[in-house]
Amino acid sequence: MENPVLAEVTRGNVVESRHRGAAIVVDADGGVVFSAGEVGRPVFPRSAVKAIQALPLIESGAADRYGLTEAEIALSVSSHSGEPRHVETALAMLRKAGRDAGCLECGAHWPIGEPAARALAKSGAEPGALNNNCSGKHAGFVCLSCALDEDPAGYVKPAHPVQQAVRGALEAVTGAAHGPERMGIDGCSIPTYAVPLPALALGFARLGTGHGLPPERAKAAALIRAAVAAHPFIVAGTDRYDTRLMGVLGRRAFTKTGAEGVYCAALPELGLGLAVKCDDGAGRAAEVAIGALIARFLPMDEATRAAFAPLSEAVLRNWNGIEVGRVRAPG
Amino acid sequence: MENPVLAEVTRGNVVESRHRGAAIVVDADGGVVFSAGEVGRPVFPRSAVKAIQALPLIESGAADRYGLTEAEIALSVSSHSGEPRHVETALAMLRKAGRDAGCLECGAHWPIGEPAARALAKSGAEPGALNNNCSGKHAGFVCLSCALDEDPAGYVKPAHPVQQAVRGALEAVTGAAHGPERMGIDGCSIPTYAVPLPALALGFARLGTGHGLPPERAKAAALIRAAVAAHPFIVAGTDRYDTRLMGVLGRRAFTKTGAEGVYCAALPELGLGLAVKCDDGAGRAAEVAIGALIARFLPMDEATRAAFAPLSEAVLRNWNGIEVGRVRAPG
Repeated sequence: MENPVLAEVTRGNVVESRHRGAAIVVDADGGVVFSAGEVGRPVFPRSAVKAIQALPLIESGAADRYGLTEAEIALSVSSHSGEPRHVETALAMLRKAGRDAGCLECGAHWPIGEPAARALAKSGAEPGALNNNCSGKHAGFVCLSCALDEDPAGYVKPAHPVQQAVRGALEAVTGAAHGPERMGIDGCSIPTYAVPLPALALGFARLGTGHGLPPERAKAAALIRAAVAAHPFIVAGTDRYDTRLMGVLGRRAFTKTGAEGVYCAALPELGLGLAVKCDDGAGRAAEVAIGALIARFLPMDEATRAAFAPLSEAVLRNWNGIEVGRVRAPG
Repeated sequence: MENPVLAEVTRGNVVESRHRGAAIVVDADGGVVFSAGEVGRPVFPRSAVKAIQALPLIESGAADRYGLTEAEIALSVSSHSGEPRHVETALAMLRKAGRDAGCLECGAHWPIGEPAARALAKSGAEPGALNNNCSGKHAGFVCLSCALDEDPAGYVKPAHPVQQAVRGALEAVTGAAHGPERMGIDGCSIPTYAVPLPALALGFARLGTGHGLPPERAKAAALIRAAVAAHPFIVAGTDRYDTRLMGVLGRRAFTKTGAEGVYCAALPELGLGLAVKCDDGAGRAAEVAIGALIARFLPMDEATRAAFAPLSEAVLRNWNGIEVGRVRAPG
């Protein structure tokens, strides 16, 4: 079966490239509201499920014990651009647990935010683990490990109590099995498990509503959503899609990007969860696809719709600033 | 019609992403040797046809008049990484025509080679037009313009004598019409024309053999091929695919990447031209696809095949250097 085109890229009057994929929208009982393409194929959610992976940090009492702020909780579910505020926030989390960046097992990379990367290079410094876009999630793992009185060393391994707790949360919230036969290693070295798209959408519908979750878990989910809505910069960064989108919609949408063309979203007031996987892994297509889905379901007044328009169709400009094309949902 | 999968991306035991596209191999008479997918759709070749775009620079006598070296001719067909040697070579070309970087109309961007970009940032400098991956092609356009006694100003515009000459070469070598209805603006502001994939492959079969070209044009094509084979670093840069591939195969293959998932190649000893377009525009897939096609047609001894293996299947490593997956031709 051929998946539908989720986004097309134009240049002049010609469609230059096409991105196919699958998308689904479900309610918090798993009822399918919208479905396109082959949604049953297992998909690695990658970073899109960081909010589910952070539930044990809250539920265990670790966040309370170390007095994590709203910004720090937002960082624990972020794929951040490695800007100074992200780096400082991750370090502050580690210090609250009596640790430092030496504990992080995510590996180092240059900030994914280009201006931040240039500034770091200009300063003569090299990137460290704090610059890794996952350092907030990993700082949360270290806090969880310390609160559980477990040695954080090896916290990225599937058998470590931290990853066991994370896997338990993923299975319970998405309702999908997370077995070793569908396990891959993520960019930051933790396990990632391929699950069908409806399970991801259901997980987000539950995160967005609390429906179907035990009370403590529903409370933790609400706390995470509030933290991200209050700190959309922290969860991504300058000019990033999640930051821009939640900057426009506030608490009305909770969205999260994942590598290789995954996007998940919750629309709490509608009780809906959304999940997109672009077949070819393209982030530019996943952004436009999730934007188009949100615009389709979420009622917006005229001003909001105008502010939202660039999020469902992106203008491509060349090095002289000339508009050369668009990335858009197919007509 | 659904295009076939040209490359798949694995993680653990799961195929995480799939890239579809079309590919064709023709001889220098246009005879089809291999074809996969919908090859009739117009495709912007983008930078893949820089060698054809550089023919007027040679044929006009401009390259001789200004005493362009082999390295400078290789740079005129490059999509370079903006490393110091690329920048110096582009500037040298401009100086030979009595001009400087102020003439370039390609726009500025940070070097596409990350180490070069970091080094430039570290030095406190900002990127200029010489760092643009197309600066060699543009320096060639300025040389051509000066040799034609035309003001270089506006040399990127479709009506300028430089672009008229370039368009003439593209039409003659590919055999395809290059009309305004299929024109887009490229990243560096010159026109790019969408043409069917067989025309691109035919153009490369002719470039690689001279067959079907007037003698002066065949000579210019041979000169360009020799220049690139002698300077595979110049045509791309550190760790770049064209540089690695021609580093292994030398004169046996002439390859060129284009943006949005295009790859073209000539295999002169076989008289073949190859063209690939990945539907979704992914460069990682176009690389693996052209590598697999070359490996399929070009006889290689054991040592060459071993050196070539990483060019038809790429290992993906995460930030801790752990192998997490592969980009490979489908099994």
